[in-house]
Amino acid sequence: MEMKSENACFGGVQGVYTHASQATGKDMTFGLFLPAEAKDGPVPVLWFLSGLTCTHENAMTKAGAQGWAAEQGIALVFPDTSPRGDGVADDNAFDMGQGAGFYVNATEKPWAPHFQMWDYVAEELPALIGSEFAVDLDRQSITGHSMGGHGALTLAMGLPGRFRSVSAFSPICNPSRSDWGRKQFTGYLGADEQKWASHDASLLMTERGFEGPLLVDTGTKDQFLDLLMPETLAQAAAARRQQAILRMQPGYDHSYFFISTFMEDHVSFHAESLYAG
Amino acid sequence: MEMKSENACFGGVQGVYTHASQATGKDMTFGLFLPAEAKDGPVPVLWFLSGLTCTHENAMTKAGAQGWAAEQGIALVFPDTSPRGDGVADDNAFDMGQGAGFYVNATEKPWAPHFQMWDYVAEELPALIGSEFAVDLDRQSITGHSMGGHGALTLAMGLPGRFRSVSAFSPICNPSRSDWGRKQFTGYLGADEQKWASHDASLLMTERGFEGPLLVDTGTKDQFLDLLMPETLAQAAAARRQQAILRMQPGYDHSYFFISTFMEDHVSFHAESLYAG
Repeated sequence: MEMKSENACFGGVQGVYTHASQATGKDMTFGLFLPAEAKDGPVPVLWFLSGLTCTHENAMTKAGAQGWAAEQGIALVFPDTSPRGDGVADDNAFDMGQGAGFYVNATEKPWAPHFQMWDYVAEELPALIGSEFAVDLDRQSITGHSMGGHGALTLAMGLPGRFRSVSAFSPICNPSRSDWGRKQFTGYLGADEQKWASHDASLLMTERGFEGPLLVDTGTKDQFLDLLMPETLAQAAAARRQQAILRMQPGYDHSYFFISTFMEDHVSFHAESLYAG
Repeated sequence: MEMKSENACFGGVQGVYTHASQATGKDMTFGLFLPAEAKDGPVPVLWFLSGLTCTHENAMTKAGAQGWAAEQGIALVFPDTSPRGDGVADDNAFDMGQGAGFYVNATEKPWAPHFQMWDYVAEELPALIGSEFAVDLDRQSITGHSMGGHGALTLAMGLPGRFRSVSAFSPICNPSRSDWGRKQFTGYLGADEQKWASHDASLLMTERGFEGPLLVDTGTKDQFLDLLMPETLAQAAAARRQQAILRMQPGYDHSYFFISTFMEDHVSFHAESLYAG
């Protein structure tokens, strides 16, 4: 693992690290914020999964999360959204290929060799940060934006017991029925829609839900609302009486200005679970 | 004036606008955050002047200022750092020409036709936002980063009575004696160093000071400390017993991670003056 940069930030350290990833077969870069408390021992950790076109850097510089995480003594992890570099398949569309891994393990050509983002985020990166940094893997929560909100929801429901709480900013809620999903799942997972179900938050909500608190914020002026379909997740959550706070925020769009506005709420929300019991 | 974007943000609106500037003879773009209170009437305004290579956008997306400004009911203005576009002189160095206006009115070729950033920030842009938006020009304060910290300090001292308070993050404090200053002042203002004095914060502090509170934060690990020379400003402020809070922040560098860490302090500091009396 190579340290790319470390900057003092809210009493802690915002680092950027690169490592050779087994899951993706490429070097991967991630951001990690450690609060001051990490000097004294392992701290709880909140994952932030980013959206289409993002790298590890966007949320790290624009989401305004570190201040609230510092206040709560929580670490933040900012993974990249796909493998990158020589020999990694790509697509001309911004919503497919590099920058658009959708947090799945691709089974289809040409994606399968490197696009193993589920394994990377669910297994390899947690193991790495658990061994290299003072983070407590028994206290993890997860959030994300847009495609990363989809990732947060599907990882949280797909890995029962892993995360104490889950939240999302303007997540893609029903990718099996959205143009942000059908093309990508067809490409990465193949045409058999049954294989998509474990990567669709609304279907997972209907089938199994999440054992813990859920918070979702979406803007009423989000320019991608028809692709996100927050109503589908809301209906599924309502049907199973899922513990949940689902908010449509008046006037807000899909931008980081929206994310930063509600970041304090999300970090506080996760802190409650991360420090419970 | 043309609206380029408006995003809901912390209950207010983060806008970006372009206008034909008389001072610079080019179209200029600026960011303006208006808190919710601006719907009911004019609000106080805090200027944020940015550093080398920045546009209006960097601080607007990375400084984390809007949340604190919203809490205080204060507007934020993010001007660009130079004229840009066809026919505007430039230099291959990142610290000269476009993105590096140094908040002066250039008198020398080839800069003089467009590099009139003092007039732009001191006169034209305030008049524009005062006429187009609900901001109260009787309640203005100013801050900035690096070259923009230099701009904030020199504008505050150079325009007595204009700003109620001034602060800066890692400002260039003594450009007449720094490689971040001598080259630029020679280019923009000519070789006569007497003409530089009104754009040197340490000389202004010695000569006249600032009638109001001053706050400066600089990181002890700032990679540009020898160019910034915070000690020179500190010595000048001490000599005249200037009302001031001058802080060297342990471990912090020159980045936006540093700025965002102390942004709450700076906005609160200005709010005290903006809401006094």
